[in-house]
Amino acid sequence: MHNYKQEIEDCHNRIKPYIHNTPVMTSTYLNKLSGAEVYFKCENFQRMGAFKMRGATNAILQLSEQQQKRGVVTHSSGNMAQAVALSARSLNIPAYIVMPENAPSVKKEAVLGYGGQVTECESTIEARKATADSIADETGASFLHPSNDLNVIIGQGTTAKELLEEINGLQVVMVPVGGGGLLAGTSLSVKSFGSECITIAGEPMAADDAYRSLQSGQIEKNITFNTIADGLRTHLGDINFPIIQKHVDRIIRVEEEEIINAMRLIWERMKIIVEPSSAVPFAALLKEKEKFAFKKVGIILTGGNVDLANLPF
Amino acid sequence: MHNYKQEIEDCHNRIKPYIHNTPVMTSTYLNKLSGAEVYFKCENFQRMGAFKMRGATNAILQLSEQQQKRGVVTHSSGNMAQAVALSARSLNIPAYIVMPENAPSVKKEAVLGYGGQVTECESTIEARKATADSIADETGASFLHPSNDLNVIIGQGTTAKELLEEINGLQVVMVPVGGGGLLAGTSLSVKSFGSECITIAGEPMAADDAYRSLQSGQIEKNITFNTIADGLRTHLGDINFPIIQKHVDRIIRVEEEEIINAMRLIWERMKIIVEPSSAVPFAALLKEKEKFAFKKVGIILTGGNVDLANLPF
Repeated sequence: MHNYKQEIEDCHNRIKPYIHNTPVMTSTYLNKLSGAEVYFKCENFQRMGAFKMRGATNAILQLSEQQQKRGVVTHSSGNMAQAVALSARSLNIPAYIVMPENAPSVKKEAVLGYGGQVTECESTIEARKATADSIADETGASFLHPSNDLNVIIGQGTTAKELLEEINGLQVVMVPVGGGGLLAGTSLSVKSFGSECITIAGEPMAADDAYRSLQSGQIEKNITFNTIADGLRTHLGDINFPIIQKHVDRIIRVEEEEIINAMRLIWERMKIIVEPSSAVPFAALLKEKEKFAFKKVGIILTGGNVDLANLPF
Repeated sequence: MHNYKQEIEDCHNRIKPYIHNTPVMTSTYLNKLSGAEVYFKCENFQRMGAFKMRGATNAILQLSEQQQKRGVVTHSSGNMAQAVALSARSLNIPAYIVMPENAPSVKKEAVLGYGGQVTECESTIEARKATADSIADETGASFLHPSNDLNVIIGQGTTAKELLEEINGLQVVMVPVGGGGLLAGTSLSVKSFGSECITIAGEPMAADDAYRSLQSGQIEKNITFNTIADGLRTHLGDINFPIIQKHVDRIIRVEEEEIINAMRLIWERMKIIVEPSSAVPFAALLKEKEKFAFKKVGIILTGGNVDLANLPF
């Protein structure tokens, strides 16, 4: 039987030396526009530019000393690759990162910049898994899953904990849902540290596996991943799904143009850079704004790693 | 005889209810890259997105009640237009803004959004002045100059005051120079509130009137304004120039590609949106980094109002 409140508190104390307690920002204009009182938790200002730093650090710190020495391995073309590389470097252990050969060179350079050892492979999910497995076999490195791992889930939950501790009386906390790690961790923190507070996720209509999974009661897959929210092109796992089923109030789906519009509003009005995935929960709030009227809403802005040469506006 | 320290303190108390004390941010990466310890004062998070809010508010508050009732007038296609409109609205007085007919519609909409009354005219400086004069004659509104006005200069100086109060031991404060209001006000604050601290400006090579003015000892004009730093396409005035002569250590000129590179670094590494003018002092620091090695440097990021559809990268 888990005592999640205690586990999240212990985790937070464990990872604090390696992460930033990121600022919470507000915008008078966006409050007027939405009709809600919105508090944005800026994980785009987190180390390496995304909340993933939290879960990766916690998962590595939970390994034994022997395991840590042999290093960690993951496959990712996104923020988890950078998070594992940087948290491993902070702890002085090797990080093996499997990246698809067609990943943007800027992402490979970022991982290399954080000291990660990059192995390229074909871009299929099978090739990525096989390459990671063979590295794990050779080196004895521990495999880190980006979202379907309880240590990662608990680590991501510390974001909402900080937000709830800083802003009293939040009635809703909103996050995007992709792999489900942040959503599961957030919902556990909301139950543990919130008071009459609920968790709501935003999800791209074009990759709405989590919405459909909650409807059907089993993990559904995406046929396509045609969304600009590149951090959300994945699906739930068997560890985070039961938590999401139990603790998440609901999922609101949004269209691509709603995501781009919300992203543009955040850039133009708050003067901060957030990646498309970050804009999904605010897009969801705007879509159903009458339901959030006068509510105190916390939104986790998940990251700020974008390719400036390839913006949607 | 002026007691600038007292005047800046009085001004700060006067305008505090109408402005934000903006955050100071740092970046481990940019510190490593530059070799200095850099503290960025984020006026891109100021109300209406730029430090101009400070000077405009102070100038309006220094008008008599009778003058305030008749309103204020300025001509600008940039941040001063928005600053005058918003500060006038905060104080419930009319703002007449003369804008060139070829100003981007997004800028006109911003001024209208802040309640300003926009009058369009030809884009020559003569037409802008004549239109503003005729509005002043008709309405009795007071003309506000964006940079060559002591109340504006003192108001802009409150930015460096906040920075020096928050970060102990700054050795250099850097700002861009365009019209000279921010630079003059900053240098007065550095003398008043700094301790062994100097003021250095960055200026685009393509509009280097301030650099040449310091060389020649008289106000020089620009022949061209071919710089991406649109906030700096102007020249010094007879009120701010003597202050700059007396209190500014030096001006470092930078090329356009150096400005764009510095802007990109700030966007990518700090995840914040700054306009090109804001990147000029950091570009200057990088250009002469050996002179700033291990120094504690404050940089004022002047604003964040950019056209996202028209970025240089």
